[in-house]
Amino acid sequence: MGGMPENAPDQDARELVQPRIRRAWYVACVSTELRKKPLAFTIFETPIVLFRDSSGQANALMDRCPHRNVPLSIGKVVDGRLACGYHGWQFSGDGRCVHIPAYTGEPDRPARRCGAFPVIEQQGFVWVWPDRSGPPEGPPFEMRYADAPGYLTVRKALPAQASIHAVAENALDVPHTAFLHRGLFRSDTPNRAPITCRIKRWHDRVECEYIGESRPTGLVGRILSPSGGTVIHFDRFYLPSIVEVEYRIGDENHIVLNGAITPVSDHESVLHACVAVRARIPLWLVRPFVEMAALRIFGQDQRLLEIQTNALRRFGEARYASTEIDVLGPHILRLMRQAARGTPAPPDGQPYTRDVTMLV
Amino acid sequence: MGGMPENAPDQDARELVQPRIRRAWYVACVSTELRKKPLAFTIFETPIVLFRDSSGQANALMDRCPHRNVPLSIGKVVDGRLACGYHGWQFSGDGRCVHIPAYTGEPDRPARRCGAFPVIEQQGFVWVWPDRSGPPEGPPFEMRYADAPGYLTVRKALPAQASIHAVAENALDVPHTAFLHRGLFRSDTPNRAPITCRIKRWHDRVECEYIGESRPTGLVGRILSPSGGTVIHFDRFYLPSIVEVEYRIGDENHIVLNGAITPVSDHESVLHACVAVRARIPLWLVRPFVEMAALRIFGQDQRLLEIQTNALRRFGEARYASTEIDVLGPHILRLMRQAARGTPAPPDGQPYTRDVTMLV
Amino acid sequence: MGGMPENAPDQDARELVQPRIRRAWYVACVSTELRKKPLAFTIFETPIVLFRDSSGQANALMDRCPHRNVPLSIGKVVDGRLACGYHGWQFSGDGRCVHIPAYTGEPDRPARRCGAFPVIEQQGFVWVWPDRSGPPEGPPFEMRYADAPGYLTVRKALPAQASIHAVAENALDVPHTAFLHRGLFRSDTPNRAPITCRIKRWHDRVECEYIGESRPTGLVGRILSPSGGTVIHFDRFYLPSIVEVEYRIGDENHIVLNGAITPVSDHESVLHACVAVRARIPLWLVRPFVEMAALRIFGQDQRLLEIQTNALRRFGEARYASTEIDVLGPHILRLMRQAARGTPAPPDGQPYTRDVTMLV
Repeated sequence: MGGMPENAPDQDARELVQPRIRRAWYVACVSTELRKKPLAFTIFETPIVLFRDSSGQANALMDRCPHRNVPLSIGKVVDGRLACGYHGWQFSGDGRCVHIPAYTGEPDRPARRCGAFPVIEQQGFVWVWPDRSGPPEGPPFEMRYADAPGYLTVRKALPAQASIHAVAENALDVPHTAFLHRGLFRSDTPNRAPITCRIKRWHDRVECEYIGESRPTGLVGRILSPSGGTVIHFDRFYLPSIVEVEYRIGDENHIVLNGAITPVSDHESVLHACVAVRARIPLWLVRPFVEMAALRIFGQDQRLLEIQTNALRRFGEARYASTEIDVLGPHILRLMRQAARGTPAPPDGQPYTRDVTMLV
Repeated sequence: MGGMPENAPDQDARELVQPRIRRAWYVACVSTELRKKPLAFTIFETPIVLFRDSSGQANALMDRCPHRNVPLSIGKVVDGRLACGYHGWQFSGDGRCVHIPAYTGEPDRPARRCGAFPVIEQQGFVWVWPDRSGPPEGPPFEMRYADAPGYLTVRKALPAQASIHAVAENALDVPHTAFLHRGLFRSDTPNRAPITCRIKRWHDRVECEYIGESRPTGLVGRILSPSGGTVIHFDRFYLPSIVEVEYRIGDENHIVLNGAITPVSDHESVLHACVAVRARIPLWLVRPFVEMAALRIFGQDQRLLEIQTNALRRFGEARYASTEIDVLGPHILRLMRQAARGTPAPPDGQPYTRDVTMLV
Repeated sequence: MGGMPENAPDQDARELVQPRIRRAWYVACVSTELRKKPLAFTIFETPIVLFRDSSGQANALMDRCPHRNVPLSIGKVVDGRLACGYHGWQFSGDGRCVHIPAYTGEPDRPARRCGAFPVIEQQGFVWVWPDRSGPPEGPPFEMRYADAPGYLTVRKALPAQASIHAVAENALDVPHTAFLHRGLFRSDTPNRAPITCRIKRWHDRVECEYIGESRPTGLVGRILSPSGGTVIHFDRFYLPSIVEVEYRIGDENHIVLNGAITPVSDHESVLHACVAVRARIPLWLVRPFVEMAALRIFGQDQRLLEIQTNALRRFGEARYASTEIDVLGPHILRLMRQAARGTPAPPDGQPYTRDVTMLV
């Protein structure tokens, strides 16, 4: 399987429109964001409104009143029902019209219903399944080590002007860190050492293990683990849009960054990050520095992703020439394309495996 | 005729592009706005320039110099002719080119003419007929009670990011007033009383009489008629784009709001309002309060119409589910569609009539 | 040949998309603008990046890294090679990939090359040939009298929201100067005198000689030549996009304005002007006044060209009605269309010649 053309270097990815996997869970918001007011969000360019009913349960409806098409998100929640801001029509969490002011007839009729989407609240995130062709196939992704004992957990929504694929590849890409984030995470030193990148791809995910890596030489690594130590480092991607960066440095330091990427449109995303950290040194001490560095790193990525997206739009295509050290990007695209086409998942046997040398 | 499907509730109006009735009079501006300088306005996305010739008569030309296509509205009026700001070509009110600086030949040639549109000034408004396929069929609409003895008359141009249909329905719609304009005009009280809405539709207009209505409970009603009184209330729409709201409260209070809606583009309009008021109490006393409330009401409508238009654009369609208490909107759309198709007007016999119950 | 329809007055030019002559030299920037940093510019909507290699020679590459399509212009020059700002890939002036950080393989592969464009630096301008279908056919245009002994030479880049044709016609058009620039250059006097305009058109250029012209009556003319004198005045256009205005007033005053127009997109250009002046009076004395007047004139033209372009866009066409005193515009369009079609140049025999009367 190692000789398959999609794994060859110098391959091209020419699609500008990203693969759209509609039958999947995506994060709409952090739970604490959704309070008394309705909340609008967009996925695959579809406007959706979230609101909590009287039991506190989150609901998701198409953000368009069936009456005169005004977004329901400009309305308000009345007795656990969502009321339109124009004529006051009220909808229950399942999308039925349950009240029309001034009207003496029966409010509920098929044409007066709002489309409703499945919602699950889990680990402090509100997940929505943006497809109505059938019930969801399984639960949302479980963020690893979130709120686990001994772990500090931080959640943050990071918007990016880029596709899922561009955001995911950027989040999991090692070589650019020495260049775009010079000094913050890795450095572009002349005396780099070779390590082995072990790629494994299953039908629904791909991971890369970096074998022989030293502690990253930049600011973040030095703060978290001043004394160095053995490094275990995995980068992973799970369909439809989850990234995971996992570091173990020595026995006591463990960082898992999970990011669920929500596609607002083809070239606009929100990375809902959930970082779980356990460390030898007290985290309250270093948290400000690490957060500052992390936001600086993400700010640089954000700016670069927007520049990249503008360039793709201008050229009307993505024409990517890859090398073997683009260890995950081409595999992510392959998984996403298969899933968007609805190719039946193969029996989960041995993963496709490949070793690659990289200088870090 | 009462069983026709277009009058049934739950009907859909899916066209996003509004019906375009070109052979009709539309208000370009208030007369006092058009002075010495040329004035640009747009109708159905066609740029038109207005100017007064030496006799003071208003003229309307295509706002494009035939020479190098610069808008004539950036030029100036010289000796009653409109001079282009680029090379100084001059045009008379009928669109002929009458002078070309530096040129020794005859200026007037067919290719050098500007298209001219019929113009009528009436009741303080400049009306333009934005079609050149034949002379106008009749005069513009006469604003009722404008400048009549005993009436205070106010004119105001109110821009709206919405189609004629959306603006007209909004202006004539009763149920939303208790909700969007809560407290200003009507209130959303739990103990509402049923009234009868008598709808009559002719081939070129539709009206609704509200029978049994009390004086509106909000601020505006209380100021104009503190003591209450019998209410006579009509809402009317006349082709192509005129709305009319008429109230008589007791013997002495009479309000007629006429609004001529000019379509700038499919989703951009200007409502040229002309309000004529006769009241028992001195109008100079209450005018500031009424104007403030009216502008507040219109500001809320303006904002809502823009939100609605953005939602229609985003979804690429207008998919309206109506009930019987949408007493005028569906009829307005039916009249506009017939007129845009150029369906010959039926003989003016008995109107289509229907009674509907509404809680106010 | 004088009776050919394309020379007749009242002709129409209805194309909105301008003729695109790709196989030609265009000015990218003034030499002094291109220093240590890469410089982005756009021609025919194609993004190109300029940079100097270690020998100081200017190079032009497609402004897109073949790896992840980020513009190379956000990167930097390292050891005379252009390094991408994302992963640090490095390219030599001929477009080959010569270094990929972290990668142990051979960097140069066909798919990893950037398109390179011919570049010539001449008379203080960097010229690029934005076509890669074959080597350039000859050198760039030579700016006349630039840096010649006794001449003051000024270079300035003037952006314009307009097509090459609109900018060129505007720069060479005499009649509008009395109107748009009233008082600055010419005046719109009632007692204008007839002069002869002698038009000559070759297969690659067109000129107009103005015979019998007095010194322009406006500010600029009066400053440069207070005492009047015989005026020799030529306006010229050279394919693909060079304008030239040449004045000799008396024996000692000589002005040559060359402008190389670079098409950013169909309706966006940069006029790279090079003005060479020799005058009787000391230029350091009058330079501030002349520059101020020139910038004022160009500012008026800039504003008008943008208004014109917006009008063309709004109408979706350019429908120009010309007269005989549009002495160059129609000929420029004819030459550009022929060149864009690639019509083989006819043998350079006698030019098409025509005399026209104009009042100035």
